[in-house]
Amino acid sequence: MVVVMRQNATEDEIQGVMRVAQNAGLQVHISKGEERTIVGLIGDVRRLDPDTVAFLPGVERVVRILQPFKLASREFMQMRSRVSVGGVVFGGDSEEVPVIAGPCAVESEESMLRIARLVADAGATVLRGGAFKPRTSPYSFQGLGEPGLRILAKAREQTGLPVVTEVVSPQDVELVGAYADALQIGSRNMHNYALLHEVGGQPKPVVLKRGMMSSIDEWLMAAEYILSAGNSNVILCERGIRTFETSTRNTLDLSAVAVVKKLSHLPVIVDPSHATGRADMVVPMAMAAVACGADGLMVEVHDDPASALSDGPQSLTPGAFASMMRSLKPVAEAVGRRIALPPACEASPRREAAGEP
Amino acid sequence: MVVVMRQNATEDEIQGVMRVAQNAGLQVHISKGEERTIVGLIGDVRRLDPDTVAFLPGVERVVRILQPFKLASREFMQMRSRVSVGGVVFGGDSEEVPVIAGPCAVESEESMLRIARLVADAGATVLRGGAFKPRTSPYSFQGLGEPGLRILAKAREQTGLPVVTEVVSPQDVELVGAYADALQIGSRNMHNYALLHEVGGQPKPVVLKRGMMSSIDEWLMAAEYILSAGNSNVILCERGIRTFETSTRNTLDLSAVAVVKKLSHLPVIVDPSHATGRADMVVPMAMAAVACGADGLMVEVHDDPASALSDGPQSLTPGAFASMMRSLKPVAEAVGRRIALPPACEASPRREAAGEP
Amino acid sequence: MVVVMRQNATEDEIQGVMRVAQNAGLQVHISKGEERTIVGLIGDVRRLDPDTVAFLPGVERVVRILQPFKLASREFMQMRSRVSVGGVVFGGDSEEVPVIAGPCAVESEESMLRIARLVADAGATVLRGGAFKPRTSPYSFQGLGEPGLRILAKAREQTGLPVVTEVVSPQDVELVGAYADALQIGSRNMHNYALLHEVGGQPKPVVLKRGMMSSIDEWLMAAEYILSAGNSNVILCERGIRTFETSTRNTLDLSAVAVVKKLSHLPVIVDPSHATGRADMVVPMAMAAVACGADGLMVEVHDDPASALSDGPQSLTPGAFASMMRSLKPVAEAVGRRIALPPACEASPRREAAGEP
Amino acid sequence: MVVVMRQNATEDEIQGVMRVAQNAGLQVHISKGEERTIVGLIGDVRRLDPDTVAFLPGVERVVRILQPFKLASREFMQMRSRVSVGGVVFGGDSEEVPVIAGPCAVESEESMLRIARLVADAGATVLRGGAFKPRTSPYSFQGLGEPGLRILAKAREQTGLPVVTEVVSPQDVELVGAYADALQIGSRNMHNYALLHEVGGQPKPVVLKRGMMSSIDEWLMAAEYILSAGNSNVILCERGIRTFETSTRNTLDLSAVAVVKKLSHLPVIVDPSHATGRADMVVPMAMAAVACGADGLMVEVHDDPASALSDGPQSLTPGAFASMMRSLKPVAEAVGRRIALPPACEASPRREAAGEP
Repeated sequence: MVVVMRQNATEDEIQGVMRVAQNAGLQVHISKGEERTIVGLIGDVRRLDPDTVAFLPGVERVVRILQPFKLASREFMQMRSRVSVGGVVFGGDSEEVPVIAGPCAVESEESMLRIARLVADAGATVLRGGAFKPRTSPYSFQGLGEPGLRILAKAREQTGLPVVTEVVSPQDVELVGAYADALQIGSRNMHNYALLHEVGGQPKPVVLKRGMMSSIDEWLMAAEYILSAGNSNVILCERGIRTFETSTRNTLDLSAVAVVKKLSHLPVIVDPSHATGRADMVVPMAMAAVACGADGLMVEVHDDPASALSDGPQSLTPGAFASMMRSLKPVAEAVGRRIALPPACEASPRREAAGEP
Repeated sequence: MVVVMRQNATEDEIQGVMRVAQNAGLQVHISKGEERTIVGLIGDVRRLDPDTVAFLPGVERVVRILQPFKLASREFMQMRSRVSVGGVVFGGDSEEVPVIAGPCAVESEESMLRIARLVADAGATVLRGGAFKPRTSPYSFQGLGEPGLRILAKAREQTGLPVVTEVVSPQDVELVGAYADALQIGSRNMHNYALLHEVGGQPKPVVLKRGMMSSIDEWLMAAEYILSAGNSNVILCERGIRTFETSTRNTLDLSAVAVVKKLSHLPVIVDPSHATGRADMVVPMAMAAVACGADGLMVEVHDDPASALSDGPQSLTPGAFASMMRSLKPVAEAVGRRIALPPACEASPRREAAGEP
Repeated sequence: MVVVMRQNATEDEIQGVMRVAQNAGLQVHISKGEERTIVGLIGDVRRLDPDTVAFLPGVERVVRILQPFKLASREFMQMRSRVSVGGVVFGGDSEEVPVIAGPCAVESEESMLRIARLVADAGATVLRGGAFKPRTSPYSFQGLGEPGLRILAKAREQTGLPVVTEVVSPQDVELVGAYADALQIGSRNMHNYALLHEVGGQPKPVVLKRGMMSSIDEWLMAAEYILSAGNSNVILCERGIRTFETSTRNTLDLSAVAVVKKLSHLPVIVDPSHATGRADMVVPMAMAAVACGADGLMVEVHDDPASALSDGPQSLTPGAFASMMRSLKPVAEAVGRRIALPPACEASPRREAAGEP
Repeated sequence: MVVVMRQNATEDEIQGVMRVAQNAGLQVHISKGEERTIVGLIGDVRRLDPDTVAFLPGVERVVRILQPFKLASREFMQMRSRVSVGGVVFGGDSEEVPVIAGPCAVESEESMLRIARLVADAGATVLRGGAFKPRTSPYSFQGLGEPGLRILAKAREQTGLPVVTEVVSPQDVELVGAYADALQIGSRNMHNYALLHEVGGQPKPVVLKRGMMSSIDEWLMAAEYILSAGNSNVILCERGIRTFETSTRNTLDLSAVAVVKKLSHLPVIVDPSHATGRADMVVPMAMAAVACGADGLMVEVHDDPASALSDGPQSLTPGAFASMMRSLKPVAEAVGRRIALPPACEASPRREAAGEP
């Protein structure tokens, strides 16, 4: 931590900063420039709130040198970590790029099972589908709840694909964890620390979506909440940030993929469906995501988008999804990877047929 | 709802939109322009998801005509609603502008009681202080929890001021409601619908902070969650939005005060402390807030900001707070209002003395 | 400038940074921490591009300590500077708050003269009106050009009010300067350095609007362009920044007023008309601007907003403007200032009558 | 254009809107809903400013149905247009993806010629280099001016590669056009309409960078300025937008590539160097850009980034550039395209050798 003193800071004020630093067990280095004195604090500064120092008399500003996250950082773990969702591996040194697919919300057993089979046939390796839906309007469909979870479990049985689904409240974590292979924290809950703490205390892997209003640092701090509560199986998911541009729902920040891979060992995947909110943008953004190194994709698919109970316009039809899977294959190969195959599964004889998407 | 068809939409596609609209019990008006056909849908369109229509074949885009919120809207209730927090009135046709003040977090009984007395003496009408703190870092102080709530109750006893404090998890709503006069939903939880639903199901008033990257529409939709769950006592609190500007922590959006007063009947107050994150910006922004019609203020005060456990740099000292209260008086009068006096309270004989800040 | 080395930077890499610094005539201080080595560069670092250093081997990042602007800074000039526009004083220690008013564009001699008289009668102290209009669409009205300037000069003659008008191209600076009392640089041209340089080389004062997506630092750097070209008469004008919020055209950043007054000696005024784009928001935001210390206001007024050739919806009617002027008076007094009176002027006998708005 | 009337708009107010519309030669359709009356205006509404209508009594808001741009739109020209820069083709149905490369600024003849040869050898098809540099600080290097242009011409002679360079002032358009094969309008000048008009009146193609604060609609309107002034050879260049995220200099908006290709027939290329401001992000973003359909790339290359006079940290070394060119090849092929070869050129015998990058 570097403390920049005001131009006319007194000797007493400089001593004041030094005292606070030494009380926190830190060493101090003073540099007197022509226009400013700078105080460097050395040691484990994570325990000292920069804001506290910033308020001391004579201090102009405080500059953080170290990243605020630790367990999530590349410095803590040099090797990229692997996270397995029901046997499907994300990240690490894996060449595979798994694709998670399914409807935004579980609407009925019939439609969920039908869509699950279609995406499995097209080469998806993990199923998605929301039983608890955070919706902007209290009058919108909020999800089926536990019956939706049972439907997802049935879809897993029939297709052999592991299942990821969202949890929106700490009380539901145990319930959702009993059915799902991975728990998803949605964009609107990335700062819901009570929820982060709860999913950190259970063993299932967590797909942590970036808050639409969150910096990459804050996103990694949210991961740190989960990691520090004991769960090291976190997959980060970039899903677009809020900007002034309105032609897409959010602005997909693909450079975040490259930034995260520099800063953190955690796998990072991309959700082009929520990022753009437009089915016609999903394929080009999925292609771009794989080309810049994403460790996986999460894509919405619905066989009747016009009557979907949520997020219809951003869902691919199964046909468009199958076509996208074919297009992704050479792109993945062009960057030395391959689109992951579904896990072997006895329950699903169609798996073999679908093996080569 | 207005549906704009693509330039070359076919008659069949136009019929398709009409069918969906009529199935939803809506009337339809067709306007054929030179370049586009436009279909107007008339009736209670809130039940029809615009996104569903947007995905129909031949549709270019869908334009919402009505606001998505209803109970929060000025059309639903023409008169501005009054919300009482332990006898202190916000909004309605009240001329009074109450000031909520106190430390960011409850740190100890001693410091809380001391600061409470200081702000009461300076003319604050409601106390604030966090017992549950949502913090970006899992390593930062997270609040005292229930012991903090007991300290707040003691501060109320000693000063006679009602107390507002934050709740961060649905499980804690009952507990916090047992101690506090009003529950606060913080900026990071504005989209935590499980929490909104829970505070909507209990009787204490709710101070709903705007999400730091939430539009005014989304903020009013969050209020709608609480209102539709049965609690009509909602106070909106503008606290800055996230922008590209970094010289203040967030950008205080004072025009939101004027916009909200047009769109909604709910009282709207301003928190200049969190908005700017800088003690030296709190006073000018508080002055501006009162001048443009805010129904109240929420300000952080700490008697030792440098050792505060959270948000030190944005806290006013008690002396600066007392000085601000004196400066606010003529501004409030210049716009035909007055800074509210504390509620009469036997427990606090110093009330009278403090009556004229 | 503080240079943070990578965790595993070599001694050679540290020496490399020292060499570059010493070649630039800077002194060097080294602090070796547990996790990082930090190199402080001391001296006139403005000549050394931080980006150059950032790219040296072993460097993690570079932190600027000093502000990048110099002539515009409060450190360069402790006293706030006064800028006179045709005798009307902005800033310095002046208690006066001048109000600039008029139509967005000069549309015809008749309408300009009529509106000029109306705003003068209501207490405006400077006239505004655009003869050159930067418009998003090439098909929109682009201003009358030189004939518009002649009309403005005539309006000045008739009302005695000095005139400020926009210049959009370096070639036009001399022409506009021959007619106007102050030149305005619009938001879209704040980064037009050729234009900034040109207005810096002539003697008329410059009203420099903040770019709608420019940081305060960049805005002060744009002022630095003008100051460093020899013209010290710069008035800064906050006019809203672009954010994700769409209920107002831009988001008025009133904290910028307070920030600028800390960082710079230059006067800072506020334009609530362009910031909000809504006539019904102009008055509350004007009140707020004066309450937080703005050194002046710039407001659009049109007597027939519905047929205005540009920016109708944000213009006040003359009646609303006169009413606003009355409302501003007590707010200015509440903060120890007063709304400026028009300059004494023989050409305008109605001046006296209008003296008390 | 659709005009939404206020809930309690009178018959007179509706008539008022109809009158204005009919005066503008438009037809009118009225739809009376339960809560609102809607007036549809039909005909060439581009001549009617929506803001004018928005201000009429009784009007709640106005919704634009048609895009504000015409010549730039896909509706005006269904086939994608081809733009040739000195024989190198961008856009249209071309399978080729040309790469523009070179230093940010022309610093000296020696360095420019050396870098030009290196990028030509690595497979670049167009040279870039700034002779006029718009810089945030007046104290930064502003470019060599005309001598820089002469150096660029010499580099073209030696390498056979056409040259694109920035123009920052209307006065310089003729001069720059005399040397360059294409003129670049930089991000900060996208709203400099005087400059857009001037480059629209000369024959050389124009590379129009997106303003860092500009929506896609505004960007296409800036293109419309050039097209409507008579120059149809416009290449759009996405180069990142300003957001709240600070880990990259700007946020590269790759979905803009897909959006532009839907809305416009103009070619669209991507500049990952300025977008990210970090050399280590250039390669992954270049890969992503090609994968999502960009019609070309513009990349900064410098053989001594640490001593570059501008934008060092975002420049690739020639070695990294050559490696990127090899990596791009299979990505382009995976999406059915190929990285363009340099134009045949007698002046450059090394062309053949470089033919297979």
